[in-house]
Amino acid sequence: MKLVRFSVGSAADGAAQWGILDGTQVQVTRGMGGAPTGETLDSAGVTFLAPAEPSKIVCVGRNYLDHIRELGNDTGDLPKEPGIFLKGPNALAEPGGAVQRPDWTQNFHFEGELALVIGRRAQQLTPENALDAVAGYTCGLDLTARDLQKTDLQWFRAKAADRFCPLGPWLETEFDPRDVRVQTRVNGETRQDGRTSQMIFPVVDILVYLTRFVTLEPGDVVLTGTPEGVGALHAGDTVEVEVEGLGVLSTPIV
Amino acid sequence: MKLVRFSVGSAADGAAQWGILDGTQVQVTRGMGGAPTGETLDSAGVTFLAPAEPSKIVCVGRNYLDHIRELGNDTGDLPKEPGIFLKGPNALAEPGGAVQRPDWTQNFHFEGELALVIGRRAQQLTPENALDAVAGYTCGLDLTARDLQKTDLQWFRAKAADRFCPLGPWLETEFDPRDVRVQTRVNGETRQDGRTSQMIFPVVDILVYLTRFVTLEPGDVVLTGTPEGVGALHAGDTVEVEVEGLGVLSTPIV
Repeated sequence: MKLVRFSVGSAADGAAQWGILDGTQVQVTRGMGGAPTGETLDSAGVTFLAPAEPSKIVCVGRNYLDHIRELGNDTGDLPKEPGIFLKGPNALAEPGGAVQRPDWTQNFHFEGELALVIGRRAQQLTPENALDAVAGYTCGLDLTARDLQKTDLQWFRAKAADRFCPLGPWLETEFDPRDVRVQTRVNGETRQDGRTSQMIFPVVDILVYLTRFVTLEPGDVVLTGTPEGVGALHAGDTVEVEVEGLGVLSTPIV
Repeated sequence: MKLVRFSVGSAADGAAQWGILDGTQVQVTRGMGGAPTGETLDSAGVTFLAPAEPSKIVCVGRNYLDHIRELGNDTGDLPKEPGIFLKGPNALAEPGGAVQRPDWTQNFHFEGELALVIGRRAQQLTPENALDAVAGYTCGLDLTARDLQKTDLQWFRAKAADRFCPLGPWLETEFDPRDVRVQTRVNGETRQDGRTSQMIFPVVDILVYLTRFVTLEPGDVVLTGTPEGVGALHAGDTVEVEVEGLGVLSTPIV
């Protein structure tokens, strides 16, 4: 089932509603994954929004070995624990929505990723029940000011600025995250092409780890890390993140 | 005026309301700083909660030179820009509420700070209008797993775990943040004793800087950094943060 968050009309800042996408029709629901209201809309008349209302966006850094190597961060040992950082809800951007290239970074990078959204409050998850806490899966673009990662005390400007996390186009509720293809294209050219089976910490391990330290709330977003192939973006580029089975997240850079 | 967030009764997880604290009475209001409903409660019958409902908690690291020196981070140059990191709303803890010392850190530290809560959506603030975006000021305790700051990729476990940000006891709306005393006591003994005039980046500078990169939303919390004197906490300790004019935030460690 494809869960969508949308506003009626063409503006991305209208009142948000949730629904189920079925072909070209949207069945309106009461909240994320809630009961249908009976109302049905044509998808051509709505603007899709980032499919999440998070209290926090939790991201995994350095979760694919080839990406660790391409950034020169390979120390010979695999990370013993996931490397975690945060973005706030201000970072979300809607699928298809433009993102302005900031003038305060000299090296603005794309990182295509599998993302998931939490469906119920979760603490101390176990390998057995971790995936039950997931409402659905989608594509995420972890925009990164690569130069400021090195110079700033923490990855605040580098990762958490406004609209640094395009997400969508929908949440897929029936999905096995263990071995799917993750591709990123820039202007139609494939730049990242990995598989989630290459993750150092798979989705279950990430969720078990996170919930030892923080409570995950319904709507929280988890980004699971990026494969090798990251690179710079310029105004005029269009980035597409495609996770196999989850559609395409398209982001024009302006 | 003292704005308080509270629940009726003795549990910290009841439905949250806002009010104005006037002596021992609480005038109930419609939301933070909203109009009085006409209802008045005795403060003895309520539990005060962290006075904020943030979408993010934005913190400044290394904002007092003496604190930079005590941690061995003095490079001879003052930071050219504020060092920023994030906590999520999961980190909030209510004034007086106990915090469990985590078993996954060997060095659990207190950092007493001046905190402020945003009152209106704020972008691209200027030195002239920055303070107009503040709803009020309060005391904050930036709990820190000092050992994990060094070993983890980013300060996630070190700073953003559940209940790592006690806040309160109330928001003071009439307050000049430029030169007030910030003290932290552990079991009654003064351990930190600074003044906000020693900040490398004063409150106005912090707000102008932050809103170049992120939109601040009503309810967002900003922690402004800690003076020297930080140290370890153990089960059985009680930490008190007192910012001159803002009351005392007391946190038992269990």
